[in-house]
Amino acid sequence: MGRMQRTLIKDLAQKSGETVLIKGWVSVRRDQGKMVFFDFRDMSGSVQGVVLPQSAALETAKEIRSEFVVAVTGVVNKRPEKNINTEVQNGDIELEVTGIEILAKAEPLPFDMSIDGYNLDLTTELDHRALTLRHPRLQSIFKVQAVIIDSFREFMKSQSFFEFQAPAITPATAEGGAEVFEVNYFDKKAYLTQSPQLYKQIVMTAFERVFSVNKVFRAEPSATTRHITEIVSLDAEMAFIDSWTDVRDMSEQTVRFILDQVATKCANELKIMNATLPTMTDKTPTLSLKEAQNKIFEKTGRDVRGEKDLNPEDERALCEIIKEETSSDFVYVYGYPTKMKPFYVYPNPEDPSVNEGMDLLCRGIEWLSGGRRVNEYKQLLEHVEKWNMDPKKIDMFLEAFKYGVPPEGGFAFGAERMTMQILELKNIREATMFPRDMHRIDSKLAGSEDLGS
Amino acid sequence: MGRMQRTLIKDLAQKSGETVLIKGWVSVRRDQGKMVFFDFRDMSGSVQGVVLPQSAALETAKEIRSEFVVAVTGVVNKRPEKNINTEVQNGDIELEVTGIEILAKAEPLPFDMSIDGYNLDLTTELDHRALTLRHPRLQSIFKVQAVIIDSFREFMKSQSFFEFQAPAITPATAEGGAEVFEVNYFDKKAYLTQSPQLYKQIVMTAFERVFSVNKVFRAEPSATTRHITEIVSLDAEMAFIDSWTDVRDMSEQTVRFILDQVATKCANELKIMNATLPTMTDKTPTLSLKEAQNKIFEKTGRDVRGEKDLNPEDERALCEIIKEETSSDFVYVYGYPTKMKPFYVYPNPEDPSVNEGMDLLCRGIEWLSGGRRVNEYKQLLEHVEKWNMDPKKIDMFLEAFKYGVPPEGGFAFGAERMTMQILELKNIREATMFPRDMHRIDSKLAGSEDLGS
Repeated sequence: MGRMQRTLIKDLAQKSGETVLIKGWVSVRRDQGKMVFFDFRDMSGSVQGVVLPQSAALETAKEIRSEFVVAVTGVVNKRPEKNINTEVQNGDIELEVTGIEILAKAEPLPFDMSIDGYNLDLTTELDHRALTLRHPRLQSIFKVQAVIIDSFREFMKSQSFFEFQAPAITPATAEGGAEVFEVNYFDKKAYLTQSPQLYKQIVMTAFERVFSVNKVFRAEPSATTRHITEIVSLDAEMAFIDSWTDVRDMSEQTVRFILDQVATKCANELKIMNATLPTMTDKTPTLSLKEAQNKIFEKTGRDVRGEKDLNPEDERALCEIIKEETSSDFVYVYGYPTKMKPFYVYPNPEDPSVNEGMDLLCRGIEWLSGGRRVNEYKQLLEHVEKWNMDPKKIDMFLEAFKYGVPPEGGFAFGAERMTMQILELKNIREATMFPRDMHRIDSKLAGSEDLGS
Repeated sequence: MGRMQRTLIKDLAQKSGETVLIKGWVSVRRDQGKMVFFDFRDMSGSVQGVVLPQSAALETAKEIRSEFVVAVTGVVNKRPEKNINTEVQNGDIELEVTGIEILAKAEPLPFDMSIDGYNLDLTTELDHRALTLRHPRLQSIFKVQAVIIDSFREFMKSQSFFEFQAPAITPATAEGGAEVFEVNYFDKKAYLTQSPQLYKQIVMTAFERVFSVNKVFRAEPSATTRHITEIVSLDAEMAFIDSWTDVRDMSEQTVRFILDQVATKCANELKIMNATLPTMTDKTPTLSLKEAQNKIFEKTGRDVRGEKDLNPEDERALCEIIKEETSSDFVYVYGYPTKMKPFYVYPNPEDPSVNEGMDLLCRGIEWLSGGRRVNEYKQLLEHVEKWNMDPKKIDMFLEAFKYGVPPEGGFAFGAERMTMQILELKNIREATMFPRDMHRIDSKLAGSEDLGS
């Protein structure tokens, strides 16, 4: 049996009438009188197999359970018209099994892993991540995520952005805050990066257009459905912009490209997840914070004018209003109060009390944020002072800007949140293969309780 | 001036006779009598500009120093035959400058940043990483590294490997050892991953073929030229192998593809670095550890037969011998003593005292390692016991293997070491944009001393 070349399950339909060898896992065994039916799967898909009463494989077939690994020889048969199932892959063929070799056995499953029977609460799903990852639903989630990440890189490269590796261990916390993890670094203190922001700006001063796909870490001491401690951050930074709207436009094209790629490459996964991609219109509506607040007041009667930011209720309301008015699921909001944002965000020269930072909202929450940055060394030093920062802690960053930096900006977003939002999942842990939070690293931590709710 | 479309410097040669706008940095200004010459650079390359005595831009030109950011209008002129320099980009054209706008000023440089004048020791280079990254030599190193990493992903995808994100924070150290960084995780202990090994094996059991590009961390308390604490690890794992040689072959194809891509996409960078790619022959020589030791004994007289591993001197000797015998710069060594390697490495069934782990050596050092893994649950449990490990610490890993895993293997290598070796650099810090070691995270740590030597 080892001599025959393996055929991937996705290619079986082209081999009607031929004898083939497949290798994969048994998803389900169903005994029907003297026949045994199997659903086999490999990395490329699933197919139904049947062991007829006279088959030499019948005895072996009887001892095979779910998740056994098998090498199966058989003949690819067209199904009779009445047995064709157009809803599933290979629904028009069947493998008539002539031989089965068990490559590896499996213990009895602790719960139902069948396509329709799978129904675990998230805690159990995570407790058994090593097994549940085999389910088509979970595979769909992470295939979509892989396409999101890879499409980001593909689009960036097409726009001449240079990929760099941002560091995870940092010497100091530029923006301070308690939400940072401390590392015991040879008996000195170091920290896990919260964002590659300052590094991407440094590298931009040398390479003009840069991007990175790297881990960032947030010591969020709260267990919500949106927070995990280790995130895949997709970051971009570009020089020689004329205005912050160049950054907006680049980020819009990036999201559009990603959505297009997901639509094309993940049609099957979207179907499995029963997910509808959000609508991005030709030109995504863009409002200043003031305009957004006025609109919310007009439409809902809730007076949020003068607030320093949009709260979650505002974000949901704004997205609904924009969707109704323009059919766009997306909306950009820019022009936040300068002092509410970090020191590197560029103030509007005509009204320095607001800045040229922006957020992209979709389906009620923020997907991406960015904007223009301060590029003049003197202005940066002024900001460092105004923001009460210690310039020594960012001396490498400041050195980059000492030597000539053009107008520039950038944006960032998290791969897990985008995956969650695209697939309309309820908890970001579903969109994270090995989620870490204050209560869990793979297993629950001692003394920990529940998941985000 | 803002109205004209920017032309990238690499595209100037196609615009002979035209008036263009470029934007970029001044690398060098040279005054020659009443004329001023500039080397301008942008993300795409360099070009010489000249400001003639009658030019309206002359006054501005005189105040511009190195690293000023400028928008320059001018006419692209062919150089007279005698001034053509075929050795450099745009050596046959010159930009006759008609207007210069200063977009950002630069402080005077702390050292010579010109192409030929740049000559810093590594400590100074790292102390000023934010500035030195602008030098073509450093840019070449990181462009080669970006191509190595991207080519790895490209080849993996072409072979149907699925990309996943391996976690950085881990709950326990499976393989123990002091060389692990501890994280203060909400007042509990967590650790930075030393390798995605167990995670990639878990994900392989669900996706069959998987790869990851992720950071790993080694708390090496030694400052050598080869050790840094934060590394970009390129990892692959594949199921349904027939033998460990399938893993060897896949790793060989991967390295071959990467070298081909570097040769094609980085010809200019290799020239700048004066680097010669290593030679990979049609079939890379493969020796068992015993065969390698015999060969070293035969050729050098040094008797290393019976040693449990190759030491650095052995690795250098073996590479030299193989190079001489076969012209291959690469050699695989397999079959190490079983107990010298981790618990997951597969013992040779015919002689369980040696295993089916392998290393790929090149130019005297290890580039990559991998091999076949134990895939049977029962054998894994036996190994866990023999290796004196706590099964509770790897329960997620063990669960994956409880439910049917085919014969499998994989390999891994570090992006920085491969960059260093391809470019024949002397210190791995040169091949790391923001190197971390026991003495440095961006800046030198308090009380720290020297670099690796």
